[in-house]
Amino acid sequence: MSEFAYIRWVRQRIAAHPRVLVGPGDDTAVVRWPSGLPCLITTDMLLQGSCFLLENTDPRLIGRKALAVNLSDIAAMAGKPVAAVVSVALPRVGGRRLAEELFEGLSQVAAEFDTAIVGGDTNAWTGPLAINVTVIGEPTGSGPVRRSGAEPGDWIVATGEFGGSILGKHLTFTPRVREAQRLHELVHVKAMIDVSDGLSADLHHLCEESGCGALLDESLIPISAAARAMQDGKSPLDHALADGEDFELLLAVSAAEGQRLLQEQLLAEFGVSLYRLGEFVPQGFALRTSDGSVKQIEPRGYVHEFDGSSG
Amino acid sequence: MSEFAYIRWVRQRIAAHPRVLVGPGDDTAVVRWPSGLPCLITTDMLLQGSCFLLENTDPRLIGRKALAVNLSDIAAMAGKPVAAVVSVALPRVGGRRLAEELFEGLSQVAAEFDTAIVGGDTNAWTGPLAINVTVIGEPTGSGPVRRSGAEPGDWIVATGEFGGSILGKHLTFTPRVREAQRLHELVHVKAMIDVSDGLSADLHHLCEESGCGALLDESLIPISAAARAMQDGKSPLDHALADGEDFELLLAVSAAEGQRLLQEQLLAEFGVSLYRLGEFVPQGFALRTSDGSVKQIEPRGYVHEFDGSSG
Repeated sequence: MSEFAYIRWVRQRIAAHPRVLVGPGDDTAVVRWPSGLPCLITTDMLLQGSCFLLENTDPRLIGRKALAVNLSDIAAMAGKPVAAVVSVALPRVGGRRLAEELFEGLSQVAAEFDTAIVGGDTNAWTGPLAINVTVIGEPTGSGPVRRSGAEPGDWIVATGEFGGSILGKHLTFTPRVREAQRLHELVHVKAMIDVSDGLSADLHHLCEESGCGALLDESLIPISAAARAMQDGKSPLDHALADGEDFELLLAVSAAEGQRLLQEQLLAEFGVSLYRLGEFVPQGFALRTSDGSVKQIEPRGYVHEFDGSSG
Repeated sequence: MSEFAYIRWVRQRIAAHPRVLVGPGDDTAVVRWPSGLPCLITTDMLLQGSCFLLENTDPRLIGRKALAVNLSDIAAMAGKPVAAVVSVALPRVGGRRLAEELFEGLSQVAAEFDTAIVGGDTNAWTGPLAINVTVIGEPTGSGPVRRSGAEPGDWIVATGEFGGSILGKHLTFTPRVREAQRLHELVHVKAMIDVSDGLSADLHHLCEESGCGALLDESLIPISAAARAMQDGKSPLDHALADGEDFELLLAVSAAEGQRLLQEQLLAEFGVSLYRLGEFVPQGFALRTSDGSVKQIEPRGYVHEFDGSSG
């Protein structure tokens, strides 16, 4: 099978979408854009062996994840995804079936979130599977929510539990697109990020961009069942703080609005629980332990390391 | 060095751009969009060993190419590039210097074409180097020029010579962004494509989308010096027809407008010569040889092949 046969196969499976003026099969796609709205853009590359293991993963879940991680980034701005382009580097042997299964997973989550797949680039090589998705989207409500904007006294709120995503959630998570839009309507979301690197690492990014610190409360951190099920000697709390790819949202809201969000559990319509994890403080990055003492902690999570040994 | 240190390094090197509301360092970038214009989007993945050889290529040229191939796609719609996002899969050893050199090449061609680098995804793995760029842009003049729209009797016009790009041009070509915009102002460009796969292959794509055929004239095909310098037993004409990555534009214009373009050489201000290669015909894909006979030809060019042996 050649890339062109595959592109024909894809074109037959892509439905018309009111936003798409030109879909796959031309030099670029052309997407209708509403007057006055800026364009959000985000990209993510998934790599065999590092972001997924091909041997024991359904390729449909890999395709799903490749798009969903980008939808999660759009969610973190309280945006609405509009269109996606997909690049793949396929193995030469077995590439056809793999390409079709990746596409099935991608197109299913695209349909769920009304995101048009409008183009891509199909390659074959002797290297491992690599897949890159770029999503464009538009802001909702009062505009994109940045990582900056959290202030001391604001509550740290999350849309779910943390830790142990490697047991499954890293492939099957729901990008919090609808939840973010609803939060953006309900309260003033002062800052937001999605947890891809790890709870403490991403909270630290948010603090850096906001120019403040954070004080997490050990007794409040929602630890997932998966974090408790991990059998590697680390504590469930460690997993919740340092494992990545939960793809829950972390947000900053005023204490008053946080209280309302939690008391009324305003995302219950989505089957989502809201948790308070602590509060933003002027400086430092610390955990209040169960005995009431406060200890500084290091932000931890997944970091891509590449040395400079040739440089 | 970690991805975060690299992202800080990149952020220090990215100048403010009037179109960019949020640049690298948040969950998505935010790009200002002019009212009423749709959004063009295109993506391309370059792979070590297939699109470039890392051992004997300056990484700056690889970074340059990764963006320039996308600019060429935007050019093929007569569009104006606006912003780019860049994903890389870096080797763990020597990744830092490589990342910096890729960025230098990218940012230089970005500046040349007033394209803002607004975000990306930085990964390290044990596989070969992979780099993916997505560019968004906006249409110019009367709107995007499609691959469809060529009609029998139209001239086949090209912006340069073909063949032998492997000797250098595949890395150093100028994406014909300005030329395409000028052509779009000067005449009715009925259909357009950029030559990435190969002259005959891409002309064939244009014919398929337009629902017509093409008759190339052997004596008119502009064969590059590089095509003549290739020492592999194939004829210069074969190289011109089948080698890929010239990144010249192929367009369809009426015979009258084609005549004017060529006689007046209306792209001379860019140092670019225009050539007539033949004409579009109702059907078939053929070459008129120097003795006046007409023979059907097969479209040839680079095709990514991946079999279905596991499927």
